[in-house]
Amino acid sequence: MAGPARRPSGRAAAQMREVHLEPGWARHAEGSCLARFGETQVLCTASIEDRVPFFLRKTGRGWVTAEYGMLPRSTHERTDREAARGRQSGRTLEIQRLIGRSLRAVTDLRALGERQIRIDCDVLVADGGTRTAAITGSYVALHQALAELAGFGVLPRLPLTDQVAAVSCGIWNGAVVLDLDYAEDSNAAADANFVLTGSGGIVEIQATAESEPFEDDDFAQMLDLARTGIHDLVAAQKSVLGLE
Amino acid sequence: MAGPARRPSGRAAAQMREVHLEPGWARHAEGSCLARFGETQVLCTASIEDRVPFFLRKTGRGWVTAEYGMLPRSTHERTDREAARGRQSGRTLEIQRLIGRSLRAVTDLRALGERQIRIDCDVLVADGGTRTAAITGSYVALHQALAELAGFGVLPRLPLTDQVAAVSCGIWNGAVVLDLDYAEDSNAAADANFVLTGSGGIVEIQATAESEPFEDDDFAQMLDLARTGIHDLVAAQKSVLGLE
Amino acid sequence: MAGPARRPSGRAAAQMREVHLEPGWARHAEGSCLARFGETQVLCTASIEDRVPFFLRKTGRGWVTAEYGMLPRSTHERTDREAARGRQSGRTLEIQRLIGRSLRAVTDLRALGERQIRIDCDVLVADGGTRTAAITGSYVALHQALAELAGFGVLPRLPLTDQVAAVSCGIWNGAVVLDLDYAEDSNAAADANFVLTGSGGIVEIQATAESEPFEDDDFAQMLDLARTGIHDLVAAQKSVLGLE
Amino acid sequence: MAGPARRPSGRAAAQMREVHLEPGWARHAEGSCLARFGETQVLCTASIEDRVPFFLRKTGRGWVTAEYGMLPRSTHERTDREAARGRQSGRTLEIQRLIGRSLRAVTDLRALGERQIRIDCDVLVADGGTRTAAITGSYVALHQALAELAGFGVLPRLPLTDQVAAVSCGIWNGAVVLDLDYAEDSNAAADANFVLTGSGGIVEIQATAESEPFEDDDFAQMLDLARTGIHDLVAAQKSVLGLE
Amino acid sequence: MAGPARRPSGRAAAQMREVHLEPGWARHAEGSCLARFGETQVLCTASIEDRVPFFLRKTGRGWVTAEYGMLPRSTHERTDREAARGRQSGRTLEIQRLIGRSLRAVTDLRALGERQIRIDCDVLVADGGTRTAAITGSYVALHQALAELAGFGVLPRLPLTDQVAAVSCGIWNGAVVLDLDYAEDSNAAADANFVLTGSGGIVEIQATAESEPFEDDDFAQMLDLARTGIHDLVAAQKSVLGLE
Amino acid sequence: MAGPARRPSGRAAAQMREVHLEPGWARHAEGSCLARFGETQVLCTASIEDRVPFFLRKTGRGWVTAEYGMLPRSTHERTDREAARGRQSGRTLEIQRLIGRSLRAVTDLRALGERQIRIDCDVLVADGGTRTAAITGSYVALHQALAELAGFGVLPRLPLTDQVAAVSCGIWNGAVVLDLDYAEDSNAAADANFVLTGSGGIVEIQATAESEPFEDDDFAQMLDLARTGIHDLVAAQKSVLGLE
Repeated sequence: MAGPARRPSGRAAAQMREVHLEPGWARHAEGSCLARFGETQVLCTASIEDRVPFFLRKTGRGWVTAEYGMLPRSTHERTDREAARGRQSGRTLEIQRLIGRSLRAVTDLRALGERQIRIDCDVLVADGGTRTAAITGSYVALHQALAELAGFGVLPRLPLTDQVAAVSCGIWNGAVVLDLDYAEDSNAAADANFVLTGSGGIVEIQATAESEPFEDDDFAQMLDLARTGIHDLVAAQKSVLGLE
Repeated sequence: MAGPARRPSGRAAAQMREVHLEPGWARHAEGSCLARFGETQVLCTASIEDRVPFFLRKTGRGWVTAEYGMLPRSTHERTDREAARGRQSGRTLEIQRLIGRSLRAVTDLRALGERQIRIDCDVLVADGGTRTAAITGSYVALHQALAELAGFGVLPRLPLTDQVAAVSCGIWNGAVVLDLDYAEDSNAAADANFVLTGSGGIVEIQATAESEPFEDDDFAQMLDLARTGIHDLVAAQKSVLGLE
Repeated sequence: MAGPARRPSGRAAAQMREVHLEPGWARHAEGSCLARFGETQVLCTASIEDRVPFFLRKTGRGWVTAEYGMLPRSTHERTDREAARGRQSGRTLEIQRLIGRSLRAVTDLRALGERQIRIDCDVLVADGGTRTAAITGSYVALHQALAELAGFGVLPRLPLTDQVAAVSCGIWNGAVVLDLDYAEDSNAAADANFVLTGSGGIVEIQATAESEPFEDDDFAQMLDLARTGIHDLVAAQKSVLGLE
Repeated sequence: MAGPARRPSGRAAAQMREVHLEPGWARHAEGSCLARFGETQVLCTASIEDRVPFFLRKTGRGWVTAEYGMLPRSTHERTDREAARGRQSGRTLEIQRLIGRSLRAVTDLRALGERQIRIDCDVLVADGGTRTAAITGSYVALHQALAELAGFGVLPRLPLTDQVAAVSCGIWNGAVVLDLDYAEDSNAAADANFVLTGSGGIVEIQATAESEPFEDDDFAQMLDLARTGIHDLVAAQKSVLGLE
Repeated sequence: MAGPARRPSGRAAAQMREVHLEPGWARHAEGSCLARFGETQVLCTASIEDRVPFFLRKTGRGWVTAEYGMLPRSTHERTDREAARGRQSGRTLEIQRLIGRSLRAVTDLRALGERQIRIDCDVLVADGGTRTAAITGSYVALHQALAELAGFGVLPRLPLTDQVAAVSCGIWNGAVVLDLDYAEDSNAAADANFVLTGSGGIVEIQATAESEPFEDDDFAQMLDLARTGIHDLVAAQKSVLGLE
Repeated sequence: MAGPARRPSGRAAAQMREVHLEPGWARHAEGSCLARFGETQVLCTASIEDRVPFFLRKTGRGWVTAEYGMLPRSTHERTDREAARGRQSGRTLEIQRLIGRSLRAVTDLRALGERQIRIDCDVLVADGGTRTAAITGSYVALHQALAELAGFGVLPRLPLTDQVAAVSCGIWNGAVVLDLDYAEDSNAAADANFVLTGSGGIVEIQATAESEPFEDDDFAQMLDLARTGIHDLVAAQKSVLGLE
């Protein structure tokens, strides 16, 4: 794979954008986090509900589900409002299914009991990486909501088994780079999203060739870079949640 | 009408919440404003399009239209996402029609030419008065977008004939009060929204009895209070837009 | 405000169209009224249901709700059938919400008990003022249905606290006029709908500037005219319902 | 087949309900007819449009299409409004397709030119036989609209090749009867709708066993009765259209 | 009616296409049949459910319902996928209502008990006569599913009162012919579908003039031909179900 | 990772199910293939259209898009028909987006010219691996359709740059296994789909932890197994297409 790529942002290949996680941003929600990856801003909230979906009733198990949306002018060109069109796009459904799976992978649904946590991820500003910011921020919102339940004694302990965070990698201008922004993403030869746990387990990999197929070695490099990015994101989550 | 009401916020009857208008909040939009009325936060953006709705083609006239939405957890209890339900509620449609009418009332649509300005108002935090904050902030976003068109010489002059702003009044605990917050709104005997121009013309009045009919005198008091509120809002718009 | 306007219909400024209220028109409904304001014809029916919306279950309180529709060729040009398009327009939703609120304002929902009255207002011929005819006629239909319940001893008394009726005013050709027909409405500088009770309380005011903002004095004149119109409508309701 | 059935309405087996066709009922439509078969009332309108569906563009041929709806309280029990549910029922679609086919069978679509006639049939009161009343009345509305086009010289002659009308027959209480009303229809062993031309040609037959299969002889009796009914309906159409 | 028509397939006027019924085709369904009428292939499945529609709860009676669909490229030109368009066409709804009625006509719904059998008919290849193949094949699927219930002792006996099958006839090139294929169907002067029981009772007749009205005698010939076709279809059903 | 797993089907860990690709199955389509992976059967068709989506008009480039559906009773328990529910599920949209991307990765869209190939993948029987069968079979259908275009001289050469096929791997009962069937899939600890080209390039990887996160080594084993499976699938495609 190729030599020194000059990234539009001036970042090094293995350098993430500046990340800010701001818990408690949404006044009314049981848990929330405004997640910023560079210019990208995603507001994540966690809402606790006392009833579970039909297929879980009387099982003693809980559920975590997610919805995702973009403000119409979060994007460079205005995007049609999905509520006005009357249906969510395939991309939206795909992303919200991914967020839900990622969070459930670190939640002890039995310990949660028959409760549902609804995560809402709304993109205020989009500049690439909205789904990875959404997953990373949603974990903070989820943690906050569950800690409240545990704090009130509703749950005997926090029903979380690990942390979870996500980052993208891609092949841009012949080089493997970490955490694509929009300028890179719209122009990448390949694009991969990695969802990993705090202890390094793989929760989800979605890698897609955009302009041409890629090789095993490219993929291995992307996975390596992803691990370094996730390491930092997990540390940022710990910091804002006051863990360790 | 009754004596000294102790408002939940401690405000005087004729006292508005603190108002902040932050133009340019949305990086990608031609015009934008984050409007805060106390805790209520509405992000307003203006997007310029080169084509007009079907009924205006080849008329030489432009259009201003608006869409409104609430983030699911902008509210005290989570509200279903309209995109997921597949339809916008009657309340949503009513509010976005009101916003569009209010802005068109101060726009010279002929001077705008065959262009459409799409306003998006998205409620980030709801604490009462979202529609009045939306109208007041949208004017700033609209002004910013049109000033850009004029600045680039696309338009010979700013196609705005006046300012426009909105405020609510209500009868709460027996007294007429200005700028209801959620604690008052959910509990008011009557509720009225006033949309006025900078020069004091009436653009729209929507007054509704909630628990029982009200009298002419109540209405007159509400209109008086509204004028004082609008006076301040128009001044705030001027200030952030650098007018005068 | 300006001098002698020659209205298209030849009416004086303060003159309503001829009003006919025909109770019992719809053979199958518990209550009904065919309301005619000049050429405008709206069929209003009231249907009694034994269950209430979810949010009222086990509260002991009832509900009144309304739906509104136009026959496709009630209008000058054919309007698309909303059932065929698969969604109701914002205008439709706005009007049916208004009708529902207006009727609830004079209904003692606690005395009604856990029942729902569904009002249907369908425009057979549209010539302006369909929403005001709908409200005025619906009151008659509602009264008829509730009187039947009371007559059968299901309810100890009629759960109505007052009458309610509606009329429009507008600024047309420089003058304030009462009860706009289509020729005026499509051409008015301002347009206001007033919903008042039989005893003169204000239930709802919706005033909108069409071509330019209007002044307090215009508004005051519109409210005065409205009161005279409502006076006649309330008398017509009394007459067909055999009250007094 | 069985002996003397006592019909709920007291009619003889071969006796239709009283039929009234009132052309021109709908003030704004190019053609219209209020069709009454006993208590059943269907308002039929014909609207002329200058463009044809996509598949007919540049073919020189026109089209006749129909839509059907029921007012929510046209029925004994209130029926949900299809516009509110967001979709038309299978029954509605089936009936409107039948009306369209029936009218096209007597229309010279080439002579009509690239125009579309939209028929709207709205049931004001339902007491059985709404589709047959709709077809019979729609022919009158269609004739009126086309006669106007011919009268204005837009068309050189009336592009109709014959009349068309419809009636139902059924097996009720063991006997074959003509023109079922609701009391019979909801209780019939079989039910058939016949659409015939003025000159006796068959346009459509839809015969359905309700509770048990029927025999060839039953069917033959139904077809015979239908011919007598259609004979009267065609005469009624001629009379109100001033033909002969 | 006219003389010797040379059918596109070379068949005689009274000759059906080759018919194959293959029960048990769908591995997972309680009952199934792949029905082929010449090139036309329809996969019919029967699924048993333990609950009935709302209107039958606590009545002790069961229900049979049907759904119909076409694979997008079952047709000569690709047809839009109804799931992607978000609504089923009027034709689809009409056909599935017909299939359901036809099967219920030979099912003892009381003997079935509070169970619902859902029939799915999916057209794999369309070459005319898909609805008649669907009805004929669905009977086999239904029989298979119900025989399983009876075999397991869930039902004391097979709750079927007769067989049911369907075939089309038409007027093509001036002659009455049996079992239209696509080349004939798209070109027929009239088209009729007959649903008959094994013992010859009439369940449903749907006869439609396509290009011009037809006469009683044409209809009588069609009914005669249909009887011969149904005779063969009923025999084919018996054969594959091992009856007699 | 664990020792010798006894797979439900008795297969070895690295053993695929029997694969059959039957080109030309769908009589009317320009290209088609019935793809069977063991019990799973997916019918894939390719339809050529002369117009491209809006965003490609006048670019000289073509497009390949895909739709996916399941027959309601292709599954063990009946699945609701998406056409009847009025919307496609997130899973459906996700799969059809994947199929489209996979095929576009080996299509020279510029050489295709302004044409669209619509792929339809309909699952007749589902027993795990429907998306991988769909991709593998769709390539055959696409090749067949494009070869026809090239054969007729519409295209100068086949606009395909490589083959493409897909297979799943998973962690089941502690072991990494190839080509999961339903019994394994519903019970796997992790699940990954690999889309590779004939020359071994990676087009797409989607790996998901079901019950707990997995490790890099597990992933590496899955990728290795996938390569052996794809090798066989590519050979099967070559064989039925008569390549080499």
